[in-house]
Amino acid sequence: MSITVVGSVAYDSVETPAGRYERKLAGAATYFSLAASFFTDVRVIAVVGEDFGPEQEAVFKARKIDMRGIERAPGKSFFWEGSYLENLNEAKTHATELNVFAAFEPKIPDAYRDSDFLFLANIDPVLQRRVREAMPQVKLVAGDTMNYWINDHRPALLEMLKGLDILLINDTETRVLGENKNLVKAAKAVMAMGPCFLVVKHGEYGATLFHESSPKSKSAEHTFRAPALPLEEVVDPTGAGDSFAGGFFGYLASQPELTPGAFRRAMFYGSAMGSFAVERFGTERLEGLSRAEIDERFDRFRELTHLD
Amino acid sequence: MSITVVGSVAYDSVETPAGRYERKLAGAATYFSLAASFFTDVRVIAVVGEDFGPEQEAVFKARKIDMRGIERAPGKSFFWEGSYLENLNEAKTHATELNVFAAFEPKIPDAYRDSDFLFLANIDPVLQRRVREAMPQVKLVAGDTMNYWINDHRPALLEMLKGLDILLINDTETRVLGENKNLVKAAKAVMAMGPCFLVVKHGEYGATLFHESSPKSKSAEHTFRAPALPLEEVVDPTGAGDSFAGGFFGYLASQPELTPGAFRRAMFYGSAMGSFAVERFGTERLEGLSRAEIDERFDRFRELTHLD
Repeated sequence: MSITVVGSVAYDSVETPAGRYERKLAGAATYFSLAASFFTDVRVIAVVGEDFGPEQEAVFKARKIDMRGIERAPGKSFFWEGSYLENLNEAKTHATELNVFAAFEPKIPDAYRDSDFLFLANIDPVLQRRVREAMPQVKLVAGDTMNYWINDHRPALLEMLKGLDILLINDTETRVLGENKNLVKAAKAVMAMGPCFLVVKHGEYGATLFHESSPKSKSAEHTFRAPALPLEEVVDPTGAGDSFAGGFFGYLASQPELTPGAFRRAMFYGSAMGSFAVERFGTERLEGLSRAEIDERFDRFRELTHLD
Repeated sequence: MSITVVGSVAYDSVETPAGRYERKLAGAATYFSLAASFFTDVRVIAVVGEDFGPEQEAVFKARKIDMRGIERAPGKSFFWEGSYLENLNEAKTHATELNVFAAFEPKIPDAYRDSDFLFLANIDPVLQRRVREAMPQVKLVAGDTMNYWINDHRPALLEMLKGLDILLINDTETRVLGENKNLVKAAKAVMAMGPCFLVVKHGEYGATLFHESSPKSKSAEHTFRAPALPLEEVVDPTGAGDSFAGGFFGYLASQPELTPGAFRRAMFYGSAMGSFAVERFGTERLEGLSRAEIDERFDRFRELTHLD
């Protein structure tokens, strides 16, 4: 089944302990699409500026990603500059230029309307909700958000969450959104807002899938924990979360049935894609990846966690 | 096979968000012994004061723990007072009274000398080393330490580490001891100091077993990651690490052969015992536990992490 994703296609300048780069192709929808494209057909809705040229297009084309929903607007693409010099788990933002993104009005190509899966990457929850409502036929909707929307746009975010099946956020975001220091209690509070699945990403400690099937249970019985790969070098953490989401949701979309086992394997594929993303700068590792390498890493995650 | 453990048998006064208690039986050797006693015979070497009475003795006796190595000295037992009000992952120490522990000279009963397993709980590395050297016949030696010894007693600690097969410490301790921010690199540096197995405890994120069998590998291939149970309430984190160590090492001691599979299962039993310890105040949960409950929780950890 094909996935439609709406989100940013952007340029990043990033500095990490391993080095720095200037204005390279990035953005949540880019990382998500590349990761998901190894599992299923992906269609992107985004806006880019005049600086988006054949070199960037080629990255999407090489992975057969449908770009008909990428609108070209006068001006520059969204730009972010940040560093991870002190802490690889948390970016320090130096500059954010919305540029063409400031007036972004997502337009859904007719050809996208038969998508069964929809991913709402981290953008204004008002836009996320608009896209979700414009695609009422989708069977499964997942999405991401960030502290900025949680803290400063809570009412719009809560409206958006009602239309989500799966939310993917990190520990801090879960605790802030769920207004509880305890992760399990915070996760339950978040699931009560709409999504019946919550994936909490723990960075180097992996991720936990919560599923609210028994709201009265005192412990988290319906949970699954996927590890992260212990890595000797994280070259660039940018896009790890979006790559996780792409692997997770892409794998789900490739499955004939959404069984509990499919969700568990999706968590492993998410972790695998996140672990690849950080091995090189920007999208480099995802661009050069093969499905065989992905399955090899999947097996390594099994080896890392399974008793037998 | 029986385990001899040397460490503190003490009293704690603790405050957590769930409540507080005054001068209850505690200490690393106590938590370790209780947890390990569900898997194998345990013998304790420690010193207690005149305040250690029949009520405390009864806790050890109920679990058939050998107390012949618990020396009685004039004065009071070791006492610690701390709180976890801000952060459940890190204790704030309010008072430490060494009392009889200040002049502790571990004495090994002859009856303990056929122990095949030795656990050196977190005490002065000079004493840990002395006990290890006095028991040259043991087949497997594991131990714990803390930032105080790593920072202020490094030479003595490094001498002690040469005699260890397995070291169990947390993330921060690993990074400080291994002098590297990256956990995998820090773990390799620590293993180069002596122990060929390193268990790094991640608190609510579980624990990782590192095994240095291929020092040149760039990624951590010989690793195993055990989860922690996502809990809605942590009543009292005190003793969680020692209970982990007791479950881990106790299970290993119960196995006919130290296969890689035995180490993996030991990590799960360690996590299980740690998860029980935090459910109630002090040693209460460990005292009332049954082996059936432990195996049920082991299965729950499998369910939490395994694909099929």
